[in-house]
Amino acid sequence: MDKKIIPKTTLGRLPRYLQYLKTVSASGCKTISATSIASNLFLGEVQVRKDLALVSGAGKPKTGYDVDRLTQDVERHLGQHEMASAILVGAGKLGKALLDYYGFREFGVDIVAAFDCNEKVLNSSPMSKPIMSLTEMKDFCKKNNVRIGIITVGQGSAQSVCDLLLDCGIIAIWNFAPCNLNVPNGVVLKQENLALSLAHLKNQIS
Amino acid sequence: MDKKIIPKTTLGRLPRYLQYLKTVSASGCKTISATSIASNLFLGEVQVRKDLALVSGAGKPKTGYDVDRLTQDVERHLGQHEMASAILVGAGKLGKALLDYYGFREFGVDIVAAFDCNEKVLNSSPMSKPIMSLTEMKDFCKKNNVRIGIITVGQGSAQSVCDLLLDCGIIAIWNFAPCNLNVPNGVVLKQENLALSLAHLKNQIS
Repeated sequence: MDKKIIPKTTLGRLPRYLQYLKTVSASGCKTISATSIASNLFLGEVQVRKDLALVSGAGKPKTGYDVDRLTQDVERHLGQHEMASAILVGAGKLGKALLDYYGFREFGVDIVAAFDCNEKVLNSSPMSKPIMSLTEMKDFCKKNNVRIGIITVGQGSAQSVCDLLLDCGIIAIWNFAPCNLNVPNGVVLKQENLALSLAHLKNQIS
Repeated sequence: MDKKIIPKTTLGRLPRYLQYLKTVSASGCKTISATSIASNLFLGEVQVRKDLALVSGAGKPKTGYDVDRLTQDVERHLGQHEMASAILVGAGKLGKALLDYYGFREFGVDIVAAFDCNEKVLNSSPMSKPIMSLTEMKDFCKKNNVRIGIITVGQGSAQSVCDLLLDCGIIAIWNFAPCNLNVPNGVVLKQENLALSLAHLKNQIS
């Protein structure tokens, strides 16, 4: 499958393109121009052409893009046809908020379970996703082909949780603990620091 | 007060500098070199000099930085002496997780209250921060000089909540709803899309 890594900014616009293309398709149109897409989505035309070139190729002169093909290409890049399973470790407030958030599915990721060492929180997700003991993690990851792990534990245990995830076959880690993690080459690590985002906002008005 | 807007990456390292400077001060040292700081924090020396030039100025040849002065400058840029108050609207799972997260204080921001239109969630924060009705928001913001607003409601009501916040005197908005917001010039807007971060991570391993 021909699939490039596309920039996060482009990726962020794909759900809007998809939504619009579906209304175009529903209205019976078979082709659509970059100009129409741009004006309907309040985007620049150059921007639209660049985005769509990354996911689908260029439109044809005069006719534009084939709506069905473009829709399929956008869906493919959003990964909606190949849902990836993720797990998270640390079923505290933030962990549970992420576990029960369904917006991830729009981008082709499903957080299928959480793990925690605190027995009190086990099996307690309101959306009935399982919260399990850490001892069950390795088996679960193998059976469900999980390759994405999310760390929502405190700073003190983040590295040991990270090591545990790697041992379970995880190759991409999204870390919410405010600390640096050591991962081997080939593992993708994304550090999320919410406090830092808020601090940066504050600094802009101070 | 001489205070520049410093890059987010530098800001992110300030808590580490501060922690280290406190141990240096406790050991009785009055001055410290960029070389020592760099080697102790596993950072590049050029990086350290650049960071500290932004918050405090250059060290002196041979003696380096004055530990007390540097500590004060780092603290000032972290804004710990001038805590800013923020409120959030939408006391769902994510809203409550942010409301009760104390890591923001390290960067000089305190989320002091949440607001929601659902009466069932009012007054229910486990950390005993108030969750109030939207009708009380304007008075609260004025009395507490709140200038930062966080939006954790759904996409459908985000713009109306945004307008309400602006009407309350808010000048910086952190939006977690997955949609674009219209704000007037002069208002700082930071769009947070957690689903997008996860999607980007997924695309790097697909």
